[in-house]
Amino acid sequence: MPSEVAISSNGQPNLKSNLSFFLNKPHDVEFAQAPIPQLPTPNHVLVAINYTGICGSDVHYWDHGRIGQFIVQEPMILGHESSGTVVEVGGNVTSLKPGDRVAIEPGYPCRYCRNCLAGRYNLCYSMVFAATPPHHGTLTGFWVAPFDFCYKLPQTVSLQEGALIEPLAVSVHIIKQAQLSPGNSIVIMGTGPIGLLCGAVAKAFGASKIIGVDIVQSKLNFAKELGFTHTYLSQRISAEDNAAAILANSDLGQGADVVIDASGAEPSIQTTLHVVKAGGVYVQGGMGKADITFPIMAMCQKEVTVKGSFRYGPGDYELAIELVSSGRVPVKKLISDVVDFHQAEEAFKKVKEGQVVKVLIAGPNEPVQVKRLDALS
Amino acid sequence: MPSEVAISSNGQPNLKSNLSFFLNKPHDVEFAQAPIPQLPTPNHVLVAINYTGICGSDVHYWDHGRIGQFIVQEPMILGHESSGTVVEVGGNVTSLKPGDRVAIEPGYPCRYCRNCLAGRYNLCYSMVFAATPPHHGTLTGFWVAPFDFCYKLPQTVSLQEGALIEPLAVSVHIIKQAQLSPGNSIVIMGTGPIGLLCGAVAKAFGASKIIGVDIVQSKLNFAKELGFTHTYLSQRISAEDNAAAILANSDLGQGADVVIDASGAEPSIQTTLHVVKAGGVYVQGGMGKADITFPIMAMCQKEVTVKGSFRYGPGDYELAIELVSSGRVPVKKLISDVVDFHQAEEAFKKVKEGQVVKVLIAGPNEPVQVKRLDALS
Amino acid sequence: MPSEVAISSNGQPNLKSNLSFFLNKPHDVEFAQAPIPQLPTPNHVLVAINYTGICGSDVHYWDHGRIGQFIVQEPMILGHESSGTVVEVGGNVTSLKPGDRVAIEPGYPCRYCRNCLAGRYNLCYSMVFAATPPHHGTLTGFWVAPFDFCYKLPQTVSLQEGALIEPLAVSVHIIKQAQLSPGNSIVIMGTGPIGLLCGAVAKAFGASKIIGVDIVQSKLNFAKELGFTHTYLSQRISAEDNAAAILANSDLGQGADVVIDASGAEPSIQTTLHVVKAGGVYVQGGMGKADITFPIMAMCQKEVTVKGSFRYGPGDYELAIELVSSGRVPVKKLISDVVDFHQAEEAFKKVKEGQVVKVLIAGPNEPVQVKRLDALS
Amino acid sequence: MPSEVAISSNGQPNLKSNLSFFLNKPHDVEFAQAPIPQLPTPNHVLVAINYTGICGSDVHYWDHGRIGQFIVQEPMILGHESSGTVVEVGGNVTSLKPGDRVAIEPGYPCRYCRNCLAGRYNLCYSMVFAATPPHHGTLTGFWVAPFDFCYKLPQTVSLQEGALIEPLAVSVHIIKQAQLSPGNSIVIMGTGPIGLLCGAVAKAFGASKIIGVDIVQSKLNFAKELGFTHTYLSQRISAEDNAAAILANSDLGQGADVVIDASGAEPSIQTTLHVVKAGGVYVQGGMGKADITFPIMAMCQKEVTVKGSFRYGPGDYELAIELVSSGRVPVKKLISDVVDFHQAEEAFKKVKEGQVVKVLIAGPNEPVQVKRLDALS
Repeated sequence: MPSEVAISSNGQPNLKSNLSFFLNKPHDVEFAQAPIPQLPTPNHVLVAINYTGICGSDVHYWDHGRIGQFIVQEPMILGHESSGTVVEVGGNVTSLKPGDRVAIEPGYPCRYCRNCLAGRYNLCYSMVFAATPPHHGTLTGFWVAPFDFCYKLPQTVSLQEGALIEPLAVSVHIIKQAQLSPGNSIVIMGTGPIGLLCGAVAKAFGASKIIGVDIVQSKLNFAKELGFTHTYLSQRISAEDNAAAILANSDLGQGADVVIDASGAEPSIQTTLHVVKAGGVYVQGGMGKADITFPIMAMCQKEVTVKGSFRYGPGDYELAIELVSSGRVPVKKLISDVVDFHQAEEAFKKVKEGQVVKVLIAGPNEPVQVKRLDALS
Repeated sequence: MPSEVAISSNGQPNLKSNLSFFLNKPHDVEFAQAPIPQLPTPNHVLVAINYTGICGSDVHYWDHGRIGQFIVQEPMILGHESSGTVVEVGGNVTSLKPGDRVAIEPGYPCRYCRNCLAGRYNLCYSMVFAATPPHHGTLTGFWVAPFDFCYKLPQTVSLQEGALIEPLAVSVHIIKQAQLSPGNSIVIMGTGPIGLLCGAVAKAFGASKIIGVDIVQSKLNFAKELGFTHTYLSQRISAEDNAAAILANSDLGQGADVVIDASGAEPSIQTTLHVVKAGGVYVQGGMGKADITFPIMAMCQKEVTVKGSFRYGPGDYELAIELVSSGRVPVKKLISDVVDFHQAEEAFKKVKEGQVVKVLIAGPNEPVQVKRLDALS
Repeated sequence: MPSEVAISSNGQPNLKSNLSFFLNKPHDVEFAQAPIPQLPTPNHVLVAINYTGICGSDVHYWDHGRIGQFIVQEPMILGHESSGTVVEVGGNVTSLKPGDRVAIEPGYPCRYCRNCLAGRYNLCYSMVFAATPPHHGTLTGFWVAPFDFCYKLPQTVSLQEGALIEPLAVSVHIIKQAQLSPGNSIVIMGTGPIGLLCGAVAKAFGASKIIGVDIVQSKLNFAKELGFTHTYLSQRISAEDNAAAILANSDLGQGADVVIDASGAEPSIQTTLHVVKAGGVYVQGGMGKADITFPIMAMCQKEVTVKGSFRYGPGDYELAIELVSSGRVPVKKLISDVVDFHQAEEAFKKVKEGQVVKVLIAGPNEPVQVKRLDALS
Repeated sequence: MPSEVAISSNGQPNLKSNLSFFLNKPHDVEFAQAPIPQLPTPNHVLVAINYTGICGSDVHYWDHGRIGQFIVQEPMILGHESSGTVVEVGGNVTSLKPGDRVAIEPGYPCRYCRNCLAGRYNLCYSMVFAATPPHHGTLTGFWVAPFDFCYKLPQTVSLQEGALIEPLAVSVHIIKQAQLSPGNSIVIMGTGPIGLLCGAVAKAFGASKIIGVDIVQSKLNFAKELGFTHTYLSQRISAEDNAAAILANSDLGQGADVVIDASGAEPSIQTTLHVVKAGGVYVQGGMGKADITFPIMAMCQKEVTVKGSFRYGPGDYELAIELVSSGRVPVKKLISDVVDFHQAEEAFKKVKEGQVVKVLIAGPNEPVQVKRLDALS
């Protein structure tokens, strides 16, 4: 049973080794021991990491050593999409106990600033976020977190699925930002992992038409398997013309109710404003160039509501788990491969090459054969 | 009394002349008679025009013959910011009677499409809007409108102020789109008539700090007179640097709650995204270039809510009149000059030259001397 | 084909007979000819009625001759839940043509008052609503309506299902008022037709737990068939104790996210406030006594949002049709029986006796055998 | 200077005495020393209490020994509306320093439950609220609080005004719950301190008509001084008839946009539902009987939005201070008297007798003569 791997044969947590995957500088990685963390307060728990997915931002740090103003200046442990098994709980913790399997929310707000108090903790100015310099990530043996940021997985959700809760929570947050209502039509630009999961979440929210747009036909084919009702292979034509083709192909009349950009690509973002209906909503969910050419008057005259979506906030993890648990979002289908901890670097290379949807890296104490079987089930 | 000018001495409306101000093509205007309109349904009223303000869009048609896809192909009567006096009412009309002084809402939605039924009639796809080709405007003697788009002016609001209700309603709509709350800080980019009125409306909505930004110092000085708490003369530096200076000068800490662009200028729009706080709101209220360079990632990572604001909708005219009537928005201060109908072309020239804030043109049946006195009171 | 029954063999509508079902006074009904209506404006259409469901309010008028201040003083045609076939369209109508099968929205707002303009036409003070004195209803041969209140049925929705769109739109409106989000828990007090449909709509909106509460076990059994996840047979104990039992039986912890009262019964309404969580929403959807004993402090201290829900508004009919068309709400299961027009009175008796969920009455020109077959399919 | 009274002549806080006002059981009070509290975490500050207002709930505990399920079982220090002077700050605190004058928010949420994370900390299930059994209140010498619940007073706000921030925050929260928009009409049932402050806040939010309703003419007269536009002396007639009279007297047409009950009285609550317009909002702000007779069908058919308002949440204290600081809410006018700490019991008696609007009790280390002068200024 995967949940037992961090527990030694005598039933106690095996806390001797904390092998971790460090990024020293771009393309220079290292496996090394890190100190096993102590519980800093009675509200914290210690978790043995079971699985960690690789995100585009992890790859970007590995490839470039920075994202915007966040620069890797000291060796930093990578990874932030993880599931784990609780091995120790602080004195105030009643909601978790050793042995509980959890999805780990990897960013910890201050709880004291105005954004935190107002329920928008993802906008906390003092956020400590895993694998965002100077903070270490979760490609390690043991992880400490406040108890309320570790979400117990129901029996129907596996630890491998648990590692997908993080990107699913990103998608849940995007769809919530979009205020998607049942019966709405939604166009999703970009069908990478986040775009795919946005489509699955949109379906669970009752969207009637879910149109995926990408420049890679194989991704669109996969989107169809996940429940997208229409797909469109983006052409090298103007944003207006791509938009007109999307509307025509999907019988969207005067525009889509909701448009998501999950690509970060300039032509996609431009297209969103021509696809969305007057009075509709466009949410920017993907990261990309800081400044782009943007059809501002189309936005203005149609009174489009535009929103950014950044990470996740209150309730997003709970809903993500519920969507997996109830079978409404089949995250398992996105897992292309599961590899051993010592294969972490190879996994990064595969993700960069775009050969896979989502690769999971087992925790350093997790046996390979179990993982592979789980992935196939 | 201005309200009587369209009524002849025997108490009946003088409906013999309907002199109108036509635009034939750019810079080619003409005064000519137009047919006096008939009431098309029992829900309509006939109004004698008293005063009409000149808007930037009027000047743009006069100067260029088009705005975007709207092209003046036949001679078109200009003007759409008008007050008037009711001279005839349809059989179903009980809320108005001849002699009532009214502000005229100049755009007439279909009332049948989904946007109309849903309470967003400004987004009606079949909108008939004054002085937007191919529809005539209000620089004419008599105007027909559905009764519910003519708003009775209280005794405390003059007909000259009544002609300012239209741009005030534009500003009310912008501030409503911004969901401005009491205690909020607001930065307004551009202090032309709409930006000035946005500041006055923001004050009535309880804003604590109202910062005006412009490239013309005299406009900023006028903003101060209208109740702006701070002003900033925009410099020829980067948007980030102008934003940092605005925040520092106004002690806005980590950003403004709300930012309005009332300029349409690219550097101003760029600045908005760097001035607004994480979780704040930016509304695009001014018209300008269709496509601009836009700091999309700043918007995304701060989860800014961006909205377009287009004309006005349910309740905006009522609130605009209430704000003038209660003395909270002193629109009279914006009236630079009032001219006779036959001076309409000169008035357009003055507005284009930027010498004035707001010029009113009297209706063709309105005596000059009365108007001038009213403006001075 | 049902859609052809109002069309004679030569392809023209058969407009000779307009047999209608009149209520003269309580329990005194009459079948009589009514004039065939003319199109009052070019925006109207004439529809031949195919099927009409019986609603509790119809039965109440039949039984008591009044509902609140609405009193039947002249003979009134009953019925307002109807589907039909377009037989004539006005000159402005492009969205419908003769032969189109439609669901009929039976209340016509003025389109001019502030509530109409603001998108809340169900609150129009001048509403003309079918079978609400002094306005006739739809248990007649031909019906006139503005084109935008006749909603074309897709091929996948039958005319019998079309007659269920009205109560489904009532339920859609209730769930929208509740601002139900995916993952929410919802408790529905009363599992008559509206409560049942609320449960089905809640499922389509992504509710995770849907708990039906009633005093009749057979209704709860039917609710289970429609997708309710839990049911509770209400006991003759206090509202607090029933609430505690509902929470315990459904593992709702500190309360339900949303509670709907679809019963109108005093004990049910009292229970809602004890079942709903702090910060939750309770919507009153059912009609009943004007004044009841109400736990006002429970509402206050938990900051419950309470809303009334009255009929339906913009978008509700469209969404109701979409939910049926996509198979997400199986309205057909609610049809207990379909009877001939001349059996209308017997149908009212059955509904009053509570033996049935929903009975449809065929239009006066509809042959019985076709209806019955359709009901069984 | 009041802010220095807790600082001894050598500039150090005088921490030798912590005289406190205990309620042993109903009408049995005692002045006794309590331990001077220690800072429990580096996020806490120690505050010397300067002034404390008396609230109806304090009087209710003194009179009855309980409120609902909250029962005084051990001697409890009363009071929760306080201002004070910071005397010590924890190691993490950078926003406050000794000598800072603060308004104290007296309820401390857990920051970990779902309501806290979601920005509704007033609904925290683990709230620790001053003078709510078993927690002590602020009629004491020194008080410990997390730094973010102590709000620095600007120079323009006195410590006596600072003690009024708590009831003003209650009123701010009520008006926010009401989603009051500029131009709205608002009827406020009950013109005690909370009702009066609701009126003043409504004015700052831009309400056009503010109607106060009470059964005591002198309170209504005072309301007029605070800016209410209309008042109505409630009659011993039906709720419907009182409502009709309110609407007629204030020219409210078909109803008020917003109605607040700040009385808790059954006839007032009933009246709210008949005064509010279709589609309007009614907020229950006052505490009273747990169960009352309620016009539920009026609520339902008019689609009224009903909300409870409980204490205050994110941003309410900041806005309250801003409203006082900017001069928009003259809280000083509500201060009827300021008494010495040893006169606390007499002050409770006066409040119970209804002779005063708001009485402040000085902290135990505060000299009388200073306070009285401040009150008169």
